[in-house]
Amino acid sequence: MNYGARITAFRKLLPTLNVEALLISSVPHVIYLTGYSGFSTHEREVFLLITGDKQFLLTDARYTEAVRRTITHFELQEITAQKNAYDHFKKLAVSGPIKTIGFEDSNITVKEFTELSKSFDAAVPVDLSTLRVIKDPSEVELIREACHIGDQAFEYILKKITHGITELELARDLEFFIRKKGGTLSFETIAAFGNNAAIPHHMTGSRKLLPHDLILLDFGVKKNNYCSDMTRTVVIGKADTKTKDIYNTVLEASTQAIDYLKSSIINHKSGVKLIGASNIDKLAREHIISKGYPSIPHSLGHGIGIEVHESPSLSPKSTDNLVQGMIFSVEPGIYDPSWGGVRIEDLVYIGENDIEVLTKSSKELIEL
Amino acid sequence: MNYGARITAFRKLLPTLNVEALLISSVPHVIYLTGYSGFSTHEREVFLLITGDKQFLLTDARYTEAVRRTITHFELQEITAQKNAYDHFKKLAVSGPIKTIGFEDSNITVKEFTELSKSFDAAVPVDLSTLRVIKDPSEVELIREACHIGDQAFEYILKKITHGITELELARDLEFFIRKKGGTLSFETIAAFGNNAAIPHHMTGSRKLLPHDLILLDFGVKKNNYCSDMTRTVVIGKADTKTKDIYNTVLEASTQAIDYLKSSIINHKSGVKLIGASNIDKLAREHIISKGYPSIPHSLGHGIGIEVHESPSLSPKSTDNLVQGMIFSVEPGIYDPSWGGVRIEDLVYIGENDIEVLTKSSKELIEL
Repeated sequence: MNYGARITAFRKLLPTLNVEALLISSVPHVIYLTGYSGFSTHEREVFLLITGDKQFLLTDARYTEAVRRTITHFELQEITAQKNAYDHFKKLAVSGPIKTIGFEDSNITVKEFTELSKSFDAAVPVDLSTLRVIKDPSEVELIREACHIGDQAFEYILKKITHGITELELARDLEFFIRKKGGTLSFETIAAFGNNAAIPHHMTGSRKLLPHDLILLDFGVKKNNYCSDMTRTVVIGKADTKTKDIYNTVLEASTQAIDYLKSSIINHKSGVKLIGASNIDKLAREHIISKGYPSIPHSLGHGIGIEVHESPSLSPKSTDNLVQGMIFSVEPGIYDPSWGGVRIEDLVYIGENDIEVLTKSSKELIEL
Repeated sequence: MNYGARITAFRKLLPTLNVEALLISSVPHVIYLTGYSGFSTHEREVFLLITGDKQFLLTDARYTEAVRRTITHFELQEITAQKNAYDHFKKLAVSGPIKTIGFEDSNITVKEFTELSKSFDAAVPVDLSTLRVIKDPSEVELIREACHIGDQAFEYILKKITHGITELELARDLEFFIRKKGGTLSFETIAAFGNNAAIPHHMTGSRKLLPHDLILLDFGVKKNNYCSDMTRTVVIGKADTKTKDIYNTVLEASTQAIDYLKSSIINHKSGVKLIGASNIDKLAREHIISKGYPSIPHSLGHGIGIEVHESPSLSPKSTDNLVQGMIFSVEPGIYDPSWGGVRIEDLVYIGENDIEVLTKSSKELIEL
């Protein structure tokens, strides 16, 4: 990974924002700029501070030895009981020219801001979410690899589906496979049987598999800090007319959205602008509604990378545009509380000349 | 779980804080008040709003069906693309008497606060961290059970330690055992071999086990939403003099801290106040320093419950007092970058008449 180029991209924001330093607090950005993923996302354990000519990493003694061994491109500042992060900021502000900083207002809490604003003359809210939105080739390769393990995991798990197995047992089997391949989970696997599939974010539980059940499997692999995400819905036994109709409607919505992206790429090359993310959402959503089904109760898709959900957003209110280098999910679904649900989710990469669907598992209806 | 009593405890804060409603945004509090643990801790997917006579849960359509099926003691308000959480707040504020709210300033971001402050006349920062600090008997029982699975997992994993095994393989074996017992991990297991044990929060990696290695294992079980946390350090082959001396010093620090808590409980019953958390930290820390070793590069301990780290804090600067009903870790350690490290971590419950060490695994030095 070219961390130098990434730091430079962040540093370039300084004159634009009219600040002397950038304070980075969100852990995914820390991973992006350092490659080190050991910090908790639940507690504040690290700050990065990028000035015009230096970059600092502030952390405490639980991590200093690990940082010394692995991160050489940031100057380490140790947080102690006697000298907390804000004391460091004050010292840096006094000794250097740092009076104004940019900070991530979507990550810094109100309580932290109260302290932060005492350390600098001005703290300017900054949205850094777009800085990771274009994936470089090494990132694309890592997500491709995570998707490949996901495809293998899906092939593996299909053989493990037997009457009476519980959602949790199936999810556990899937995780064992992923762990053996050197991955971890991007998120807790959703395994939803029967009418549990009606809950888009069902919590995998002790429900046992019954004849004629739908099985919705939504899972992701994380490897080398990058995530995959994929959903497939299969059916036990022969699908009835309702199931087939719903499944095909979702599949058509998926195909139409991806085909539209493909044709946009071609148009783009002949001078037409790439399409807005909300338009892709609209296309899939309206197809489902046109068939008499309820609108998708979630976004059509989301960007993915170090985080399982990141920019861009494919939703009705999104103002994002989809451009070359982006990777995002396309995941239409139909849900009926009394019946169940079907969702099909792929990851799509906008390459230079074509759209690449990174999740290769078949989307034909599988009857087990 | 008596959710009614918990909601009442939160509601009781309204007059004290002089606000008409309490906005709860942190997911651990949502779990505590609803029992539902399906919301992401990485994205904002839920708010609870507790007024003088009502309580609302705001979430989007990915969760509404799950909430309808499982949470009946909150009034559901659906967040949509057309009506976001802040629109709901405004409506609730307009239709009802809600002009002032208390909000969690350690959880709400600066960006959210900008929106929030438009919805209410006044938003008052509130620290709710102490509301879960005293565990009720059902919570103690759940943490006891998680610790029991942890003890079983440790016994199991000792048999799996063989020359050449990697840190990741050992951690994976441990997780498989925990998953089979119906638990998940409280946090990614720390398995540190040799001088990796010098890093208190080492990231488990591909280091292979060698003769005479130290093995530091820090892991936790989460079951029914409650966490355990435990560390043991064992040695391959016969421990040399240095290892024995460091191990015994850490063990003495642990024993002295727990014995001091026990004697404090007895003194407490005869009218003496229970001791400050910082004093227990000091006791263990000074014992280690008195033997010529460096001070512990982290706190002596932390509260635990729905979160693996919560109130109280046993650290040099802590102002917390330790009282009946609290559960927290006691985890002294000695680390030497060129050699390795030893940490011993137990969970301790302050019962009515005695201190209960919930982690039962032996703390004698194990030579494998």
